[in-house]
Amino acid sequence: MEDVTDHSRMEVLSSAECFELLSTVPIGRLAYVADGAPQIFPIAFGVHGSRIVFRSATGSKLDAAEMQRQVAFEADAWDPATRSGWSVVVQGMARHVTDADDLSRLDFKPWLSNEGMEWVEILVEDISGRRLPG
Amino acid sequence: MEDVTDHSRMEVLSSAECFELLSTVPIGRLAYVADGAPQIFPIAFGVHGSRIVFRSATGSKLDAAEMQRQVAFEADAWDPATRSGWSVVVQGMARHVTDADDLSRLDFKPWLSNEGMEWVEILVEDISGRRLPG
Repeated sequence: MEDVTDHSRMEVLSSAECFELLSTVPIGRLAYVADGAPQIFPIAFGVHGSRIVFRSATGSKLDAAEMQRQVAFEADAWDPATRSGWSVVVQGMARHVTDADDLSRLDFKPWLSNEGMEWVEILVEDISGRRLPG
Repeated sequence: MEDVTDHSRMEVLSSAECFELLSTVPIGRLAYVADGAPQIFPIAFGVHGSRIVFRSATGSKLDAAEMQRQVAFEADAWDPATRSGWSVVVQGMARHVTDADDLSRLDFKPWLSNEGMEWVEILVEDISGRRLPG
């Protein structure tokens, strides 16, 4: 498949490439809107096919999920030595995962200590990515 | 100074530590609200004292700045081998920097190719950080 290049020298990634790259890093960042203001924080996440999941303690993160709130998610990796890297951005809805069957399939071991026992899934509505060649 | 530890095993960082850590990484992530929805994207940024600056092309990033829009900014670094790392989160206002004296002091060499020639500063209203010891 040909690389599609946007107006800069960044290469535009396919959805499949985006999900593949997401699975190579343990930490991403979640953004949502609270009282009209943008919020952002790191999350340890897992990718299962086209599902993006993370764990949350009760509090603002899970509240957002319970409210089916719109979220944006970003993960990336960069090599300062070669000035290369990639970034993937997801738009979607956060959903509290409570179904037992669902949970049994999420064999994901997060490692950030701000995690709780509740599972949240990002229902992906749009995924886009860019790669900066070295 | 004693480390303050929050409810998890994350250490709470001082503002000075946050700014110091920010200066060690080239890429962060900016979040803002557009039409009520959260937006997030990576930015190459620089830190000068307590100033956080980045460059922007015309478009949504700069528009946000021109409108003195509320933004959230995050940067982090993680070591999967030791499961250690840190994250700093900033809340503030984006401001288009146009003052010539201001610009002459911003000797910052960004390297993401989505950057333009316009300078944007994040006027820091709140900065907080956590460190996860290895």
